[in-house]
Amino acid sequence: MTLARVHGRIEELFALSPGKNGGASRPAFSRAEARAMLLVAAWAREAGLEPSVDPHGNLWCLPPGDAPCVTSGSHVDTVPGGGRYDGPLGTVLAVEAASRAGGGRGVLVCAAEEASRFGAGTIGSRSMTGKLSEGDLSRLRDTGGLDALTARAEYLDALGGLPRLRSAPLERVSSHVEVHIEQRAALRDKGLSLGVATTIAGPVRHGLRFSGEVAHAGETPASERRDALCAAAETVLLAEELGRRCAPETTATVGTLEIHPNSLTSIPGTAKLGVDIRGVRPGGARRLLEELLDGARKAADRRGVYLEEGQISASEPTEMDGAMVAAVEEACARLGVRCGRCVSFAGHDAQHLAAVVPSALLFVASENGVSHAPGEAVAEEDVEAALGVLCLLMESPRGEPSVMLRGLR
Amino acid sequence: MTLARVHGRIEELFALSPGKNGGASRPAFSRAEARAMLLVAAWAREAGLEPSVDPHGNLWCLPPGDAPCVTSGSHVDTVPGGGRYDGPLGTVLAVEAASRAGGGRGVLVCAAEEASRFGAGTIGSRSMTGKLSEGDLSRLRDTGGLDALTARAEYLDALGGLPRLRSAPLERVSSHVEVHIEQRAALRDKGLSLGVATTIAGPVRHGLRFSGEVAHAGETPASERRDALCAAAETVLLAEELGRRCAPETTATVGTLEIHPNSLTSIPGTAKLGVDIRGVRPGGARRLLEELLDGARKAADRRGVYLEEGQISASEPTEMDGAMVAAVEEACARLGVRCGRCVSFAGHDAQHLAAVVPSALLFVASENGVSHAPGEAVAEEDVEAALGVLCLLMESPRGEPSVMLRGLR
Repeated sequence: MTLARVHGRIEELFALSPGKNGGASRPAFSRAEARAMLLVAAWAREAGLEPSVDPHGNLWCLPPGDAPCVTSGSHVDTVPGGGRYDGPLGTVLAVEAASRAGGGRGVLVCAAEEASRFGAGTIGSRSMTGKLSEGDLSRLRDTGGLDALTARAEYLDALGGLPRLRSAPLERVSSHVEVHIEQRAALRDKGLSLGVATTIAGPVRHGLRFSGEVAHAGETPASERRDALCAAAETVLLAEELGRRCAPETTATVGTLEIHPNSLTSIPGTAKLGVDIRGVRPGGARRLLEELLDGARKAADRRGVYLEEGQISASEPTEMDGAMVAAVEEACARLGVRCGRCVSFAGHDAQHLAAVVPSALLFVASENGVSHAPGEAVAEEDVEAALGVLCLLMESPRGEPSVMLRGLR
Repeated sequence: MTLARVHGRIEELFALSPGKNGGASRPAFSRAEARAMLLVAAWAREAGLEPSVDPHGNLWCLPPGDAPCVTSGSHVDTVPGGGRYDGPLGTVLAVEAASRAGGGRGVLVCAAEEASRFGAGTIGSRSMTGKLSEGDLSRLRDTGGLDALTARAEYLDALGGLPRLRSAPLERVSSHVEVHIEQRAALRDKGLSLGVATTIAGPVRHGLRFSGEVAHAGETPASERRDALCAAAETVLLAEELGRRCAPETTATVGTLEIHPNSLTSIPGTAKLGVDIRGVRPGGARRLLEELLDGARKAADRRGVYLEEGQISASEPTEMDGAMVAAVEEACARLGVRCGRCVSFAGHDAQHLAAVVPSALLFVASENGVSHAPGEAVAEEDVEAALGVLCLLMESPRGEPSVMLRGLR
């Protein structure tokens, strides 16, 4: 079984729209994402599938007719200067597996998975599963001020003559499996080729705004300062401490911080920060947030600083389908592939599809833990293992019925 | 003695170029600063003085002839949305005192005193005393990218027909006194009308850049994070702690902080901060900085973060002339004005002039400690006291020789 075509297609996608740092840049709902979708549609057509796009921008490549089928796929958008595997690996493997199955299996490529452009990810899969409305999209904006609804309309235009669906044909999907490169190096550390996700963390995102008083850096005595940055700094360190204490089940990161007036000779009057908390246990992220807010309030009070806080988004962890996890493990066992159960702290389309159809999320071991950067790397043998398992899941190369179909229907 | 003209002129300057928050905005080397200088030049001409501008942009209003004289004055530029007294109070009082002395006394208004536009203040006084070169000016830039040298040329153009000096006529100045609104409320708290500065703190400004690693907020375990913001936050809190511990002799403020990529779902890879440290004891600011850098290095090392640091500027405190301090105290005693010795943590033009001519810095009590904002306030009786003391210093209203001239020459 040669993987030349798989790697060739991954490189073809990677070369479509070069970004900074030698990486690829195909932002969510951009012309570059549309070009990548059209390339996948052409490969799927070669495999006997019928490509079309739903109103949310997702690419569906289904067998002719209207019978239920197993689907696989990932996404083709990237962060700025992203790597070659995040998205394309699962997408190209899905086309390859469908092709080897001789038709009868579908490919689903979800649109706008990366959060880097609009501050919110998995837009395509959340839209088609009713978790994100058009109103929500109109409120999401990129740094240029363009809203996601307008960007999507431009992206759909760029898909040209691709047939349009009136709605996402989820009723035809009997089960779905997404293959994705692992975003840390835990599988490699354990000597595993693949990992199957049992839980996907639910991110809780919160904004905090500290308001003190701008004052002269020289002339304001220590006892009279109302320094917003100091209150924010204490909160940053508390988030770090809570993240360590609650590891590995819950993470906490202050990723954004902006102060005003940001002048060398002024005591900062306001400091705004954003925290991202993710937990794989129900309620875990929320509990960490409560403790953080409690500490932030004390840090503010002690300095005569006023704290306002507000939810950016909140969700609970997703438990993946147990029968699907078992199907993946069975396929791995039959092929002698080393596979372990794992959790994902990153969000993926499969977690949203899981709400409406039995779904699995399969990780291919990362060689180095690099993610969202040109250095992403996977071992040849692990890609081969993933393709083998995917083929067996979608339909045995020896003509047996699909493991997933047999197990679930 | 009525103060109506003094207050009328202060209001006239305040109304020249309204800024945000109901304040005044006359940035350093702007057309608005030039308009204010022209207004002062007109008032000085009425008082029998001959206004002209030196190549550094400073306004000189000297008596006809070339005999030595006592000068007074402050500045007329402001921070964005500044108050009515910071600069104009000392400038208008100087014109008033020179006018009452019947000529024979000069007014010196220094250009570009406020640091808010170019990140460096007292540009006019430092330029004329050889502390700032044209090369230095060309490297100072405002947020629009315009350098201070170009801005000064535009400002000089805007001064129109005002006579030009080939150099600053410092050789004509026998002594100089600057009156300025206090920038905290310490005098009022002590029941004093005026304060005479014995020392002006020397600011030490330093930049720190922490470089860690941008990584996925969800997928990077606590133990593998190299979070630049956390190292910076620890440094912010250490600066706060050292500022408290070394109060009231030394202050420390982190006024600027910027992080990259500043994305909610990314661990910050770099954090850049700027610290301003001011001390009134020789070496005090430097010692605080060393302790801060030591802590910053440890905060960085503990997180696998790399620290680069560099001096932005450094200076030692300025001891003001003892004979000038005594002359101010003598004048206050003769007039029954409550005056105390104090230190200044803010920089002033008088501290740079002090290097070349005996100089005094006289503070008028602030009613509320507000500085660099429209709420700046002084009591009528304190302004009257300042004018009385200034007149006596420059020349006794009863026709006696100037206290300063008598004491110093």
